[in-house]
Amino acid sequence: MKKYIFIGFAFFSLVSCKQEKAIVISDPLPSWNETSNKDAIIDFVTLTTTEGNENFIPVADRIAVFDNDGTLWCEQPLYFEMVYSIAATKALAAHNDKLMKYPEIQALVKGDMEAFMKSGAKGILEAFAISHSAVSPEEFNTMAKAWVDTAVHPKTKEKFVSMTYKPMVELLKYLQDNQFKTYIVSGGSTQFIRIFSQDAYNIPPEQVIGTMFKAEYKDYKITVKPEVFLMDDHAGKPEAIFNIIGKKPVLAFGNSDGDLEMLQWTSTNLLPHLALILHHTDAEREVAYDSLSKIGTLKNALIEGAQKGWIIVDMKNDFKKVYSFEK
Amino acid sequence: MKKYIFIGFAFFSLVSCKQEKAIVISDPLPSWNETSNKDAIIDFVTLTTTEGNENFIPVADRIAVFDNDGTLWCEQPLYFEMVYSIAATKALAAHNDKLMKYPEIQALVKGDMEAFMKSGAKGILEAFAISHSAVSPEEFNTMAKAWVDTAVHPKTKEKFVSMTYKPMVELLKYLQDNQFKTYIVSGGSTQFIRIFSQDAYNIPPEQVIGTMFKAEYKDYKITVKPEVFLMDDHAGKPEAIFNIIGKKPVLAFGNSDGDLEMLQWTSTNLLPHLALILHHTDAEREVAYDSLSKIGTLKNALIEGAQKGWIIVDMKNDFKKVYSFEK
Repeated sequence: MKKYIFIGFAFFSLVSCKQEKAIVISDPLPSWNETSNKDAIIDFVTLTTTEGNENFIPVADRIAVFDNDGTLWCEQPLYFEMVYSIAATKALAAHNDKLMKYPEIQALVKGDMEAFMKSGAKGILEAFAISHSAVSPEEFNTMAKAWVDTAVHPKTKEKFVSMTYKPMVELLKYLQDNQFKTYIVSGGSTQFIRIFSQDAYNIPPEQVIGTMFKAEYKDYKITVKPEVFLMDDHAGKPEAIFNIIGKKPVLAFGNSDGDLEMLQWTSTNLLPHLALILHHTDAEREVAYDSLSKIGTLKNALIEGAQKGWIIVDMKNDFKKVYSFEK
Repeated sequence: MKKYIFIGFAFFSLVSCKQEKAIVISDPLPSWNETSNKDAIIDFVTLTTTEGNENFIPVADRIAVFDNDGTLWCEQPLYFEMVYSIAATKALAAHNDKLMKYPEIQALVKGDMEAFMKSGAKGILEAFAISHSAVSPEEFNTMAKAWVDTAVHPKTKEKFVSMTYKPMVELLKYLQDNQFKTYIVSGGSTQFIRIFSQDAYNIPPEQVIGTMFKAEYKDYKITVKPEVFLMDDHAGKPEAIFNIIGKKPVLAFGNSDGDLEMLQWTSTNLLPHLALILHHTDAEREVAYDSLSKIGTLKNALIEGAQKGWIIVDMKNDFKKVYSFEK
């Protein structure tokens, strides 16, 4: 009987070989142009995930951190979460006298946007705190989800949540497919980003680290206080990664000086690593801005990145497509 | 040739069938006695992971949180991390005058343990802070790892890290095998628990939430300050889970009043959930203690747990074996 078995075995092997040949390796980053930056990203992922290669990184150490505003989705003309915070605060304060103690918020409720915006960061930060703390966490989720599902951007007339960058979503998927654990490390609030991170980026709530308000547990309930517990920006980013993830990332991607410290810290990893900056150079398809912009200021990180050979992704040259809704 | 191939195929099918039949469903909790508590745990895991069952919990919501000291490993006669902190501080302060500013630490270095212990929590908390902040995070890891690898318990003469409870390690594995994401939520420090959590519990560093010291990033480096940033005990536990995991757990396991708030909050989950308390009732194999113990005080949680039908695991009755090293 041995001979028969052998023939059967050979047949199966043949089928198996044919199947292997039928697998076509498709481009993991189809919305990226064929540039040296795309090559560098694919080389990094390929080498660090090839067992036996000197650059191989064990799965447990494949921690990749991404800024959100301006890195994964648009942040102009104003951080989208601030657009939400202003709208929510306006709605909440109109029915709650206690929230009207600040003149900026009074102006907001009256519809005097000029006076509100004139206060600059002050009014916006008050609205940020009020929108998170004046309601229960469950109500926050309901309100923010309703906004995310419906609100549209003033310029594109598309939903804000549709304004994630297609090449970046592809990069997240490419890394996830290669067993990198992808985290968001953002100056935006943890609570807000968790509303859409799973659907938009395939990143679960527990892999979202953002600015956190003080949470207070009492009588079986969590309430959120209008007091920042963790400001997840600049040095706050590596500090949060240290305390919450407990491992130095091997890949960090940001777009502004607020990401510099996270990029620096990642670049000290003794394992192979990649630091990347998205440079907004495309006035036609998105917005062109860097050192002079108030939102997403990029100056020091661009200088240090250029000196240190970090990958400076040039939106105009590197992105074949910016948004999914583009024709 | 077809006939030969068929024979070969039949042979392979036979082998495959035999293998399937050889799979026997083994007891996932062999170190637990056959009690109603064990049944309740197995029922919970079975029902919540059976698709179509009314108690089914989607994988993304299977968050299980465990206290560490007294729940996953022994905490008597003193929290093991404090034993480390005292030893490390004694070694560090002997060569660093700056650390000698407290009389308790001076007593410790002189070897006057009576004076040190007489200061109670004060001396111990100073040693806790010094052991984490007087060295770099990398040095902390090296020192703590060396201690974990060698230090032995005064009573059992076994390594501290061998004093994890075998039934609890089995429960962690059982939950992990059923796609529960297991977290440690401990009053002990995140940094210390991360040293051994992967090896002891198959829990990676990023699923360890503990007390955190203030981390400061500057000049490409993280340093740890002798200042608590997050006290992960009592209300601090659900607060940390809210901010860091962002989901209410479906299973919580603790052993002291410091776990009460985490158990309470878990018990408000609208999904099926389980709250469990380990009651230390075994003076022979471990230590019997509850409301009168300074370490791991269990009083209010025991009362509320009994009222609410939480599972009170009785170590003496429910654990067939306590430690792996037992004969």
